[in-house]
Amino acid sequence: MKAFTKYLTFNVPERMDFVNITRDVEDAVRSSGVQHGLCLVNAMHITASVFINDNESGLHQDYERWLEQLAPHEPVSQYLHNRTGEDNGDAHLKRQIMGREVTVAITEGKLDLGPWEAIFYGEFDGRRRKRVLIKIIGE
Amino acid sequence: MKAFTKYLTFNVPERMDFVNITRDVEDAVRSSGVQHGLCLVNAMHITASVFINDNESGLHQDYERWLEQLAPHEPVSQYLHNRTGEDNGDAHLKRQIMGREVTVAITEGKLDLGPWEAIFYGEFDGRRRKRVLIKIIGE
Amino acid sequence: MKAFTKYLTFNVPERMDFVNITRDVEDAVRSSGVQHGLCLVNAMHITASVFINDNESGLHQDYERWLEQLAPHEPVSQYLHNRTGEDNGDAHLKRQIMGREVTVAITEGKLDLGPWEAIFYGEFDGRRRKRVLIKIIGE
Repeated sequence: MKAFTKYLTFNVPERMDFVNITRDVEDAVRSSGVQHGLCLVNAMHITASVFINDNESGLHQDYERWLEQLAPHEPVSQYLHNRTGEDNGDAHLKRQIMGREVTVAITEGKLDLGPWEAIFYGEFDGRRRKRVLIKIIGE
Repeated sequence: MKAFTKYLTFNVPERMDFVNITRDVEDAVRSSGVQHGLCLVNAMHITASVFINDNESGLHQDYERWLEQLAPHEPVSQYLHNRTGEDNGDAHLKRQIMGREVTVAITEGKLDLGPWEAIFYGEFDGRRRKRVLIKIIGE
Repeated sequence: MKAFTKYLTFNVPERMDFVNITRDVEDAVRSSGVQHGLCLVNAMHITASVFINDNESGLHQDYERWLEQLAPHEPVSQYLHNRTGEDNGDAHLKRQIMGREVTVAITEGKLDLGPWEAIFYGEFDGRRRKRVLIKIIGE
């Protein structure tokens, strides 16, 4: 069994944004030498997501508007979590909708993605340094 | 380490519906010969889900109604994504609530599911051919 | 390849509550002897979740209030599922928001968690015995 570990670092200038990381994950799969296995990609921070969906800017704006409706940033006083001095209570909720992680199959040395699947880093409390973990196991 | 890959194909006649695929996944586990390992089951399309919940038709109607409240199909003009000519903006949102994938443990050659756990394909933009991936690794 | 399986049992006295299980999962990783691999942790019941977020009581109260807004327990008659004699229709919806499972990387014999990541059992229909599965594979 082979195992491969890689960390990606982000510093997203907006509070909320989505970054296509498909190429980074493909690079990691190539580096791992794994032909058949599983590739876990997860946010290491709890106000961020890794998810798979469409690489289409209109949809990303739809996601931002929808998440803002479901868990509004303002007023920050509505979240008990913000009594700790944080203002990111909403980001912890948004991240649960979009998820922490994806697990992707590796088949014949490549990510076994459907035709429109792209892997995104989802940031909900940006303007600071955060990491994503890629862990690959297989043979 | 063993690895096993299988693709399921669906063409759901409704826009939104849920299909019990537990038997298909059990068949794949048997075919794999894996005694202890992990079984990933994921939608390969970004307007569909694979999730685990109850095989109870009332609950499935509750899910449909609830998802329609959280991300209504109509009016289709409310989603920027639909400016691409699609009318499935809502389906991309619904799928994030229900999730893309499940990972299930394999123990002593069988899916290690709880008493009421059943695996479902969730379709949110049906009436066309879509695929699900089953990837099993273990020994 | 090594494989390790462990079941945790809970009997949460409240209908809805969150239990920090990070230590239990760390113990399982140590027992497994796996240095590099994947650790799946999932609820075995369909009205419960395993998720990763902050170990902060204000946030947990925010989650409870938010989930109650998105899928209210009362009136129980609003859910077709409750016609089966259950009163937990809402719990099946809440669990989809928070998710069934997490997969965590194991690196150099330890859970490869970010600085604030903690693993929680999320109960949405408590006051009875339920189980969580930990499955570890790797080398």
